[in-house]
Amino acid sequence: MKIVIIGAAGTMGTCLSQAFEQEHEVIRASLRRSEIEVDITSPVSIEHMYKKIGPFDALVSTAGPTYVGPWKSLTDKEFRQGVDGKMMGQINLVLIGRDYIRPNGSFTLITGALTHEPQRNFANASAANGAVEGFVRAAAVELDNRVRINAVSPTVLESSPQYFPYFPGEVPVTTKQLEFAFRKSIFGAGTGQIIKAY
Amino acid sequence: MKIVIIGAAGTMGTCLSQAFEQEHEVIRASLRRSEIEVDITSPVSIEHMYKKIGPFDALVSTAGPTYVGPWKSLTDKEFRQGVDGKMMGQINLVLIGRDYIRPNGSFTLITGALTHEPQRNFANASAANGAVEGFVRAAAVELDNRVRINAVSPTVLESSPQYFPYFPGEVPVTTKQLEFAFRKSIFGAGTGQIIKAY
Repeated sequence: MKIVIIGAAGTMGTCLSQAFEQEHEVIRASLRRSEIEVDITSPVSIEHMYKKIGPFDALVSTAGPTYVGPWKSLTDKEFRQGVDGKMMGQINLVLIGRDYIRPNGSFTLITGALTHEPQRNFANASAANGAVEGFVRAAAVELDNRVRINAVSPTVLESSPQYFPYFPGEVPVTTKQLEFAFRKSIFGAGTGQIIKAY
Repeated sequence: MKIVIIGAAGTMGTCLSQAFEQEHEVIRASLRRSEIEVDITSPVSIEHMYKKIGPFDALVSTAGPTYVGPWKSLTDKEFRQGVDGKMMGQINLVLIGRDYIRPNGSFTLITGALTHEPQRNFANASAANGAVEGFVRAAAVELDNRVRINAVSPTVLESSPQYFPYFPGEVPVTTKQLEFAFRKSIFGAGTGQIIKAY
């Protein structure tokens, strides 16, 4: 299987790349420091990436820039970070990638527990997650050629202890749990699912 | 109570205005044909509106432009209609309105069943709804002075029979059901709630 990993240079992307490359062809893509460079906030850059990669079986996104900061300083400008990043960046990976994905392929996007379990400073991520989850359910009834789409939703990651203080009471998600959630989406049969990694 | 109704010239806004003006001061706002003109896709226009209106007790939004059309023609460009309209338009009503709303006031936004129950042609609305619902839950933990925020979520409206073919099996929501849902948000105690009108 040819698996494209977006955000491959990040913590999550690195783990998934290493896990999947043992049995599959993995294409690493990220803003910098990967074999394929892509800026998901730009539809032109996404189209360029797919042209380079050609037909593929699975697209995995671990890339989700959003604004994190005090409510009082949250305005339209800051909010657009999550809109153009985690939301439209990932949605455009699908809207453009549907022309390149092989039949029976799958898209797996990343959201997070913040959709339903808000924390202070993260309203932008809650909105972006909610948008991606609504989109995933809608795209699942639209995609043809048996192409599937799901989202993986973790809470705070064990590998990001700097965020622990912002998620009181949340049991951190391990790398292995994350990997399993992505496996379920890529190799399972479900579509339109929000797969909790916690 | 001073209640601002956005989208007051529309079907939903007209009904709510007539229902609430019997006991409250209602300020009608919409893109055209209302005492206050506002383009919710523009933060400048929203700020201008609030300056004219002054302090208020409840903001009710019934305005949610999104793109409706075939999946195959859905690209970033069409998707931005819902992003700038139903999503950021309503979110900016809150991010700007928080400086004008009175203590104990409330914001009520509009989403829809499409968040969780997708239909073909409406992926843009599913995403915009999901974003607004995620935002509502997050804003509820951030707003101070006991200001509340909720969303009302209807399915297809009885007053919009032209949409019936797109919502097979959905029992249309009556004007009265909608009014009751908004009443629950404005006059009830809940916050961070998605109030189903169906």
